Amino acid sequence: MTADFDPGRYLDHAVRLAVQNVADGGGPFGAVVVTADGSVHEGSNRVTRDNDPTAHAEVVAIRRAAAASGSFNLSGAVLYTSCEPCPLCLSAALWGRIERIYFAADRHGAARAGFDDAVFYEYFSGTRPELLPVLHSEVDGSEAPFDAWRHNHARTEY
Amino acid sequence: MTADFDPGRYLDHAVRLAVQNVADGGGPFGAVVVTADGSVHEGSNRVTRDNDPTAHAEVVAIRRAAAASGSFNLSGAVLYTSCEPCPLCLSAALWGRIERIYFAADRHGAARAGFDDAVFYEYFSGTRPELLPVLHSEVDGSEAPFDAWRHNHARTEY
Repeated sequence: MTADFDPGRYLDHAVRLAVQNVADGGGPFGAVVVTADGSVHEGSNRVTRDNDPTAHAEVVAIRRAAAASGSFNLSGAVLYTSCEPCPLCLSAALWGRIERIYFAADRHGAARAGFDDAVFYEYFSGTRPELLPVLHSEVDGSEAPFDAWRHNHARTEY
Repeated sequence: MTADFDPGRYLDHAVRLAVQNVADGGGPFGAVVVTADGSVHEGSNRVTRDNDPTAHAEVVAIRRAAAASGSFNLSGAVLYTSCEPCPLCLSAALWGRIERIYFAADRHGAARAGFDDAVFYEYFSGTRPELLPVLHSEVDGSEAPFDAWRHNHARTEY
């Protein structure tokens, strides 16, 4: 049995979490991470309740799965989410080495409900740079952290 | 006084945090969020120590700034980071409504130190889709969370 043998089942689960989260006063998003060993880790959007702009359902599920697994590397895990993942959640999945993502509703559904996922996709496509200016300003010692890293033979790479 | 009146000062601060974090057993990244009221919030990379693939220095600093501010919206805040922010950190800044980012080292320095930031930028430019397949699989009720959201007149929008 692989973690994604039945995508519909876990997508239903994610959608149910999303509906429940609205009833609980949160945003309309839910997610489930199924790790390689079949363990199921739930996440709901906690942005407004936790005052945490990064607490998207997928991020919450990934953080919980990693904590429960005792590893920052979730290779072989599958992420199921009620809505197409935004760039934050895609990035979290990339860094968590998630193997594959399934989603139910898409970015346009999210946009119709008033969320900025589609706009932030435009930022990454390069058409909305004004949303967030990013400026390079080299300082003395910019490379010092990397030098220290290379010289630390006890480092944990990721 | 604006939060970015002296970028070099806060970049030095971020670089010092990054160097210290290596000595403490973490990754070579540090960040500082200065909110509109001038409050300073530090972050260091906690990925390996917390088993949290999302605990990049910038994300940690943004989460702390939002928690301390009691708001998921950090409008007017500036993010200073020891290294060019990866897509995860850019996305966290977008959702947190950070106004501007300054960085010291760049993605190529990170790549030379063995980090995947540059590869993940390629994912977002569309040239490395194999890194993370994302599959749409509509299920009955895909739109139910958004319907519930629209009908919840007590919702907190963000």
